[in-house]
Amino acid sequence: MELRKGLEDIAIKETSITYIDGDLGRLYYRGYSIYDLASFSNFEEVSYLIWYGKLPTQRELADLKSHLAEERNVSEEISTFVSKVAKTANPMDILRTAVSMMGLEDRREEGLVTKAIKITAKIPTIISLIQRTRRDQKFIEPDPSLSHAENFLYMINGEKPDLNFSKTMDVALMLHMDHEMNASTMACLVVASTLSDIYSSVVAGISALKGPLHGGANSEALKQFMEVESPDQVEKYVLNKLSTGHRLMGFGHRIYKTMDPRAKILKDYAREVTEGKPTERLYKVAEKIEEIGIKILGKRGIYPNVDFYSGLVFFSLGFDTDLFPTIFASARVVGWTAHVDEYLLDNKLIRPKAIYVGDLGKKYIPIDERQ
Amino acid sequence: MELRKGLEDIAIKETSITYIDGDLGRLYYRGYSIYDLASFSNFEEVSYLIWYGKLPTQRELADLKSHLAEERNVSEEISTFVSKVAKTANPMDILRTAVSMMGLEDRREEGLVTKAIKITAKIPTIISLIQRTRRDQKFIEPDPSLSHAENFLYMINGEKPDLNFSKTMDVALMLHMDHEMNASTMACLVVASTLSDIYSSVVAGISALKGPLHGGANSEALKQFMEVESPDQVEKYVLNKLSTGHRLMGFGHRIYKTMDPRAKILKDYAREVTEGKPTERLYKVAEKIEEIGIKILGKRGIYPNVDFYSGLVFFSLGFDTDLFPTIFASARVVGWTAHVDEYLLDNKLIRPKAIYVGDLGKKYIPIDERQ
Repeated sequence: MELRKGLEDIAIKETSITYIDGDLGRLYYRGYSIYDLASFSNFEEVSYLIWYGKLPTQRELADLKSHLAEERNVSEEISTFVSKVAKTANPMDILRTAVSMMGLEDRREEGLVTKAIKITAKIPTIISLIQRTRRDQKFIEPDPSLSHAENFLYMINGEKPDLNFSKTMDVALMLHMDHEMNASTMACLVVASTLSDIYSSVVAGISALKGPLHGGANSEALKQFMEVESPDQVEKYVLNKLSTGHRLMGFGHRIYKTMDPRAKILKDYAREVTEGKPTERLYKVAEKIEEIGIKILGKRGIYPNVDFYSGLVFFSLGFDTDLFPTIFASARVVGWTAHVDEYLLDNKLIRPKAIYVGDLGKKYIPIDERQ
Repeated sequence: MELRKGLEDIAIKETSITYIDGDLGRLYYRGYSIYDLASFSNFEEVSYLIWYGKLPTQRELADLKSHLAEERNVSEEISTFVSKVAKTANPMDILRTAVSMMGLEDRREEGLVTKAIKITAKIPTIISLIQRTRRDQKFIEPDPSLSHAENFLYMINGEKPDLNFSKTMDVALMLHMDHEMNASTMACLVVASTLSDIYSSVVAGISALKGPLHGGANSEALKQFMEVESPDQVEKYVLNKLSTGHRLMGFGHRIYKTMDPRAKILKDYAREVTEGKPTERLYKVAEKIEEIGIKILGKRGIYPNVDFYSGLVFFSLGFDTDLFPTIFASARVVGWTAHVDEYLLDNKLIRPKAIYVGDLGKKYIPIDERQ
């Protein structure tokens, strides 16, 4: 039996959802370039694309939009629970519990994507409940006339976002929706493969995304930008960091050996949303870290990844730093559920083995004879 | 890249926790035969063995016993929540949510096994809260003077169990504590490999165990026994079942090609706890199904597995049928957490791949031009 810790280079499934070309730095959802989707599309349309495998007609898109908008409210029990713990608990623990509660409350027999729509619609409500409760701000009811991205920002900031902000949010969410296999998607599949329910799968996905090796790098990247006072101190900062054995946060990726296309796209939006604002300094520092970082690390295939600019974007849009992994989850839930749906078309229970390396045949010694 | 759906015959880790000899029908925890452990040991001692890799001294066992006994109470929030949903929700959904809430409440920095002890101690309290609320019975406070198995039955039935019952419960729990790799343990490992917390891992384990391909077979096996009126109708029942394309529930195992040693052990306890009781008929039917089933299926390596008698045992001990998977979880949590602990000694992020089989380079068509 082969020992394959980490399952590197083992394919758990075939997929037609996402393709990553790591050498050329390209990413496709259902065959469409992420550049096109980021330029022309929006959260709802790309959700449709990922779930159903094709771009929607106007009618199909309108249906999905209204379905998502209708499902934003969470139950009284969930909102009471979230408000109660918002000030003390870890946001990912809250989200994991809230989605688990949703599963427990939802007793309808429905298709998997219908459930996925409900979860996707409700997560931003949970996130805004956390942030606004912690800031002692009044909860903002979801506004069904707003798009998913607009409403998300509206519920966070209490005012309707301008076009620039809502487009940025749309793009940031689209870029996080799927990324082929990874630990959280794998956790979802393992759970789904026992024919457990989709809420249980998503709960497992959130559980995995909570880990710092998976969903936590963007706030670390942002912290870096905050540590440097001005762009002209970046070179010293980076050299010092690297020479003392530290890594540049938001740099390097298992698959991309060039600039992550998501980082390229987010960079433009980061520049726009920080322009003329106090956060502009952070952008200037980031840009300089990118330049110097690539100069030093680029030849080893280490380039900025999605986390490099996403933290700055989410921060600029009004989110608390420790909520970033929950925003990640709010988008990735689309990919998680689509991968589960695809896997279940030809399900196989995921059940690896272990290699036994201990002793055997030990003699049981009664406790009063043990030393 | 190899497509390995299901990960069959891929080892995700090395282990010194559990060894299964499927041909000879033997099972070892930390090198000790399950037969010896079932005969001479108990829940607390085997938990110690699985977590720490050796049998405890008297002092070590006393410490673990009192630690487990002290941690049985759940918070006011959790008990209120569980009582509120007990009558309507799926028990595994409740347990998943309750453990997620425990994680959110527990903000102490402690070792993994210390956390595991807390979770292990509290799960029986959740289970008894569910059952007693549904039956409109008063909640029974845990009694720290009782052993884990005794207290579990006491909280379910409201009276202290006799020696026969508590020994049976001890054995049934020991037999479910670990079984090398399987879907739920894999779910725990995937989550842990991101360096997420142990509660998140256990939540993922419960999420996977909920699936009917994993944790639901014992109630189905019990249902079979209830369907047959007397042992002399078994032959006709079995032949009819098999000739109409149905499976015998509680028969067959991926690894065991002979009688599952856990089924062998449980059979004796099932006989004892049903003797002279209304459930005796079920035992007689079960015994006959075993005999006829082996006669027909044994030559193909299909024998009774742990689920065949465990449902009858749990039922006889006083548990509602739909709580069986939660009892399974209450024992398996020891194995889950021990496997996570072992994996983290030399952690590697679990991140398989997928093989892309879709189209690429599709042209984005604006929505008003789509047909």
